[in-house]
Amino acid sequence: MTTPADTAALAAALDAADPLAAHTAAFVRDPSVVSYLDGNSLGRPLTALEQRFARFIGHDWGTRLIRGWDEGWMRRPYDLGDRLGALVGAAAGQAFIGDSTTVLLYKLVRAAVDAQSASGRTEIVIEDDSFPTDRFIVEGVAAERGLEIRWIEVDRAAGATLEQVRAIVGERTALVLLSHVAYRSGHVADVAGITAAARDAGALVLWDLCHSAGVIPTALDASGVDLAVGCTYKYLNGGPGSPAFGYVRRDLQTALAQPIQGWMGAADVFAMAPRYEPAPDLRRFASGTPPVLATVALEAMVELLEQVGVDAVREKSVALTDFAEASLEAHVLPLGARLASPPAGPTRGSHLTVTHPAFREVTERLWARGVIPDFRGPDGIRVGLSPLSTTFAEVETGVAAIGEELRAALA
Amino acid sequence: MTTPADTAALAAALDAADPLAAHTAAFVRDPSVVSYLDGNSLGRPLTALEQRFARFIGHDWGTRLIRGWDEGWMRRPYDLGDRLGALVGAAAGQAFIGDSTTVLLYKLVRAAVDAQSASGRTEIVIEDDSFPTDRFIVEGVAAERGLEIRWIEVDRAAGATLEQVRAIVGERTALVLLSHVAYRSGHVADVAGITAAARDAGALVLWDLCHSAGVIPTALDASGVDLAVGCTYKYLNGGPGSPAFGYVRRDLQTALAQPIQGWMGAADVFAMAPRYEPAPDLRRFASGTPPVLATVALEAMVELLEQVGVDAVREKSVALTDFAEASLEAHVLPLGARLASPPAGPTRGSHLTVTHPAFREVTERLWARGVIPDFRGPDGIRVGLSPLSTTFAEVETGVAAIGEELRAALA
Repeated sequence: MTTPADTAALAAALDAADPLAAHTAAFVRDPSVVSYLDGNSLGRPLTALEQRFARFIGHDWGTRLIRGWDEGWMRRPYDLGDRLGALVGAAAGQAFIGDSTTVLLYKLVRAAVDAQSASGRTEIVIEDDSFPTDRFIVEGVAAERGLEIRWIEVDRAAGATLEQVRAIVGERTALVLLSHVAYRSGHVADVAGITAAARDAGALVLWDLCHSAGVIPTALDASGVDLAVGCTYKYLNGGPGSPAFGYVRRDLQTALAQPIQGWMGAADVFAMAPRYEPAPDLRRFASGTPPVLATVALEAMVELLEQVGVDAVREKSVALTDFAEASLEAHVLPLGARLASPPAGPTRGSHLTVTHPAFREVTERLWARGVIPDFRGPDGIRVGLSPLSTTFAEVETGVAAIGEELRAALA
Repeated sequence: MTTPADTAALAAALDAADPLAAHTAAFVRDPSVVSYLDGNSLGRPLTALEQRFARFIGHDWGTRLIRGWDEGWMRRPYDLGDRLGALVGAAAGQAFIGDSTTVLLYKLVRAAVDAQSASGRTEIVIEDDSFPTDRFIVEGVAAERGLEIRWIEVDRAAGATLEQVRAIVGERTALVLLSHVAYRSGHVADVAGITAAARDAGALVLWDLCHSAGVIPTALDASGVDLAVGCTYKYLNGGPGSPAFGYVRRDLQTALAQPIQGWMGAADVFAMAPRYEPAPDLRRFASGTPPVLATVALEAMVELLEQVGVDAVREKSVALTDFAEASLEAHVLPLGARLASPPAGPTRGSHLTVTHPAFREVTERLWARGVIPDFRGPDGIRVGLSPLSTTFAEVETGVAAIGEELRAALA
């Protein structure tokens, strides 16, 4: 078994050998934050943001003013969407930025099930342990459109499997909505296999990329994915509450219609036309005014990810996650905590969940001393590893602190 | 008739006597912007924002990180909503920030008509010249819920009148959706009278405050208004695409349900509950994660408006608008342009529309020389007067430039 002394030495060696180590200094790091293990929930800010916002305020907004709309702001959801899309395997013209994940889920779920209703498909398939907002949206849409929900009962330490999907889809399935990475366990789903199985049954497939975008390579186009949504304030470091992104496969775009008909989705925005005519492309999924100010931070992180490449990020993510497991084995699991995530390998994402009944109290103590994982009821601490901003030493310090506080709580 | 020499002298005198003159220096003013006449569309940034964003990035986000959610971010839509609500006559607990105007319109229109459907009310009343997104939302909701739209035919140089509303509402009216200030003409509607007339008929009333919030006093509570939405990037200077705000009268909140059921609207957000249970208060109108980063600029402007008071802002707005009319009479109307806004007085908001067939071309020329009004097809220039950031001299310079470019276009 790995001992604490081993893991401290291992962390130092891994940091020394890390080809991405220099990037950790590109993020705001304050001495009061001893260890940040929650970049999977809210990514750290880049230090460059101070200057970027100063420029945006003083120049883009401050001097171009309303002219900014003609000089790039109107295209921003699509230009930035193309760049973000490239990070998840989407060719240009299929990804866009806007609204919140919840609102985009509503729009795309509605668009999908409304399009399928003509062929008598009346069922939505979803995991019973998916992130609550996904379930709540599906419940609401099912109720208002008279549809049935088919729940996949997932292992909470894993996620939906291809076999489960194959067993549940059929001629009545309108839509399958699943998470690429399970928010609780970090399980990575088989996107290509599940998408093929669902599409073979005639269903549309919507992937929630919230816990994978920016950290795990995704091949949306190559996997034949129909629809996707994702979050930009986790591994995309867009800032608290930054807008979501959506993906609609090109050949589906004009076949779908979403219900929140706003001026920004109209064929001719400034015609102020008497009746709504949806744009003949991706723009029909937009509703209100593009969130420009809210995407300044996101743009900076997309740039950094373009430089580094998501494959390199994933490589460090795997190394960090494997190391975190070793560190948990040394400091925390011997105290009776249990790892509730998949084993090392391709089905494990960039966070680990470890459970213990004392973890709610332990998390409070950790936060007070600047060690910041997050807690998910009833008893889980999530150790999230955002590769570009996290050092191995930080993981070791943080996990050792979890052990210390758990020991104190049990004393 | 007023001559150009008169208006230049008058502008100087009005600036010298303006009790709010000092505030114009609180906004980013670059020499390249000769005259900004579009604060009604996108308010200028406050110079203090550079420091506010630096603090937000370096401290709030950078060091508190995920702890920020417990330390105020979760309450932010409601705390800032209360403060913004006070500016439009709403007691605490009824206004909130989130989504875009279009998405909030969808939620509140759906909530209203769904609640009214039990009593057989199947009609939505709206102006035929309301802002396109309002009409598009109503069209979409009417189609999906099987409702009828009753259009009020408005005078485009004015807006919906109390008499028109009285004539159209009845026992089948579910909802009346009107603009407080008409986006085209600047006409100020009789909120109290129209609300009373609609409610007498058993209808719910939703006011669009996009073109009035922050510049014209509104008495939502005192007028018995049911619902309202508004924009924060116009007279509230929240930055391009900043989130919207909504208002739901307290005693209606639990009687209404909106369709975009997200985790942030659930009774217990972090219970990750198996089924959606809406919060027993205003929070049920939320869907996704609160837009924190996107409201840093808005908060700064709300603070300034709290200091100055909306009554004082309105006073300067009236003075600016009256002066702009005099300046237009001196420089522009003699060239064949026509004023398409209400006469001076309480039914005139904070922008004037002036029309001429050459104005599309004229606007392009104006923008190129740093004089920035906006253009609304087919032939309108809007002269928008954001009181805290606009000087009388700036209006005079801008309107004189409109005259010069119109003369050049006609030559």
